[in-house]
Amino acid sequence: MTCTTARSVDAIGDPWTLMILKELFVGTRKFEEFLAMTGMSPHLLSMRMRKLQKNRIVERKLYQKKPRRYEYKLTRKGVDIWPIMVALKEFSDRWTEWPNGPPLKVSHTGCGHRIVTRMVCERCGGVVPAWDATVTLSKEMAAERREMSEDFYRKIRRA
Amino acid sequence: MTCTTARSVDAIGDPWTLMILKELFVGTRKFEEFLAMTGMSPHLLSMRMRKLQKNRIVERKLYQKKPRRYEYKLTRKGVDIWPIMVALKEFSDRWTEWPNGPPLKVSHTGCGHRIVTRMVCERCGGVVPAWDATVTLSKEMAAERREMSEDFYRKIRRA
Repeated sequence: MTCTTARSVDAIGDPWTLMILKELFVGTRKFEEFLAMTGMSPHLLSMRMRKLQKNRIVERKLYQKKPRRYEYKLTRKGVDIWPIMVALKEFSDRWTEWPNGPPLKVSHTGCGHRIVTRMVCERCGGVVPAWDATVTLSKEMAAERREMSEDFYRKIRRA
Repeated sequence: MTCTTARSVDAIGDPWTLMILKELFVGTRKFEEFLAMTGMSPHLLSMRMRKLQKNRIVERKLYQKKPRRYEYKLTRKGVDIWPIMVALKEFSDRWTEWPNGPPLKVSHTGCGHRIVTRMVCERCGGVVPAWDATVTLSKEMAAERREMSEDFYRKIRRA
């Protein structure tokens, strides 16, 4: 399916998977720590970890031989999920009541100031609000959507 | 649970919900159009739409009285999901093979140039890569995590 969202959501957009990713960004590495911090069952956790490995988002490394113990780390591709996580966090900070302030702070190492997500115009560098953005479909996607629409209305007319 | 990701993921992080959100940002408004574009069943779609309304992300407006027809629009809170959608799209554009180029282009209205996500330091305005960010837990969250960890190890020792 020619849908960008569907593809990334397929790789990461399940609540448990996002919980695992958050843990990875917070620094969790060991299987047992993931169990403790997410409340997942070992079976569920290893299924999601295997999917993340298959999607090349996480890699597993042996850190102890007897007994065999692995640690889990983000790959280069995994680290690229960072802006999604920060955007999720900002949304939740903004629209949830946190009586003691947001539970996490993301800051610029060294400088210590807060890091924020900005939608920026590639040319002028200016911050672009949502209402100043245009979404254009590629020829292929436009054709696919036209077809989906025609199929749909053909089916309900027949029904 | 003191977890930012869990909260926003609970509101939006289900694959179907994200598909609906994408449609809203692309301009889809009518129930039937959502059905056509997502392939969801009417039951599934109305369940997800109701949850989005309950979370004040979507609002429903009557646009025709006989028969009664509603259109669905993003609220102010819903529009705030925009950076998450753009970040998801960028991730997928970068890590998926698109032989004809990415299916969607997000551009600066008028100027026509591409809009990109940037993680920016609130003070200096500089772009901050993931490896230059520090995540700090609030006192409450740190305490909650300590407790979760202690509970977990207590339980497995007992087992």
